[in-house]
Amino acid sequence: MQYPEPIAKLIDSYMHLPGIGRKTAVRLAYFTVNMDKTDIANFAEALTETKDKLRYCSICGNLTDEDPCEICQDPTRDQSKILVVEQPKDIMVMERMKDYHGLYHVLGGVLSPIDGKGPDELNVRSLIKRLQANEAVNEVIIATNATPEGEATAMYLSKLIKPAGIKVTRLAHGLSVGSDIEYADEMTLFKAVQGRTEI
Amino acid sequence: MQYPEPIAKLIDSYMHLPGIGRKTAVRLAYFTVNMDKTDIANFAEALTETKDKLRYCSICGNLTDEDPCEICQDPTRDQSKILVVEQPKDIMVMERMKDYHGLYHVLGGVLSPIDGKGPDELNVRSLIKRLQANEAVNEVIIATNATPEGEATAMYLSKLIKPAGIKVTRLAHGLSVGSDIEYADEMTLFKAVQGRTEI
Repeated sequence: MQYPEPIAKLIDSYMHLPGIGRKTAVRLAYFTVNMDKTDIANFAEALTETKDKLRYCSICGNLTDEDPCEICQDPTRDQSKILVVEQPKDIMVMERMKDYHGLYHVLGGVLSPIDGKGPDELNVRSLIKRLQANEAVNEVIIATNATPEGEATAMYLSKLIKPAGIKVTRLAHGLSVGSDIEYADEMTLFKAVQGRTEI
Repeated sequence: MQYPEPIAKLIDSYMHLPGIGRKTAVRLAYFTVNMDKTDIANFAEALTETKDKLRYCSICGNLTDEDPCEICQDPTRDQSKILVVEQPKDIMVMERMKDYHGLYHVLGGVLSPIDGKGPDELNVRSLIKRLQANEAVNEVIIATNATPEGEATAMYLSKLIKPAGIKVTRLAHGLSVGSDIEYADEMTLFKAVQGRTEI
């Protein structure tokens, strides 16, 4: 016996999502069948709306339902700093910290020759234009991930921007707060020692 | 900054699913934004179709898009056996084994006084009616889960059905295939010893 067709389709859709294998997809599909009709309708609507209503901010590349996005529109934000992230979701992670009040720029990825991602595939040109047009910016903080590609992208951007006399900084590397030295990898420990601060 | 509304709605919907917390929901929502438009449309359609097209089989209680379901309609299945499961998805698990060719009956849960689930909340009446109407049935195999509630439900059904002269059996308990005795709990080991077979 096969799954009834509507369930088979739903299992297939759930399996398209990252980190969801066949077993979880089956569980989610059968769960969905017992969900409230309104909840399902909301879910379906939310799915279609993501594509219809969301666009990328024409200034910073963030995902937004209004252009320019909330942050680019906000005159109370510190216009002298731009923090560069890989993905739109990284902005929300930084915002949750509640300590950074500057602007953002979303690269949309990192330099990765193996995936055919060069500077032209990222929002690098728009960043440079932004820096040229806006003299208020005096610091670009690079917050790409601590991966080899993220590091390489940070170095590339630094070389590109520094000559214009703008300060380029990078997020600090070191031990996670609450973590145990025993479990830290060598690279992290090395960076933690290199970046030690006086107390 | 808040999440753009369409994303916030989608995160909320994903969080309704079992086993999906806030972080995973955020990851899934941002993944969805980058999904193919057709894939998203299919997903949304599959969601709404589950409620619109699926019903419970009027004979066995299985989820189906046609009534009676595929299995109840199939004359090649062994009409003398009914395997009783808790949920529709359990049928697919049994079918994957490819060794059982009889019929099924879905209880829709187990007896659980604490959750207010008595025999009237389960498909017990329809099972009894089925047994009365169909003299071909000579065995009812109870495949409720190996939980205290599943056991109690099995005992209850056995007491109800046996007096009619129908054989009532229960799935064997024992070690999982490929498992290590060292990690088996005492109850499982006890059941495995009790149910030992000659080789």
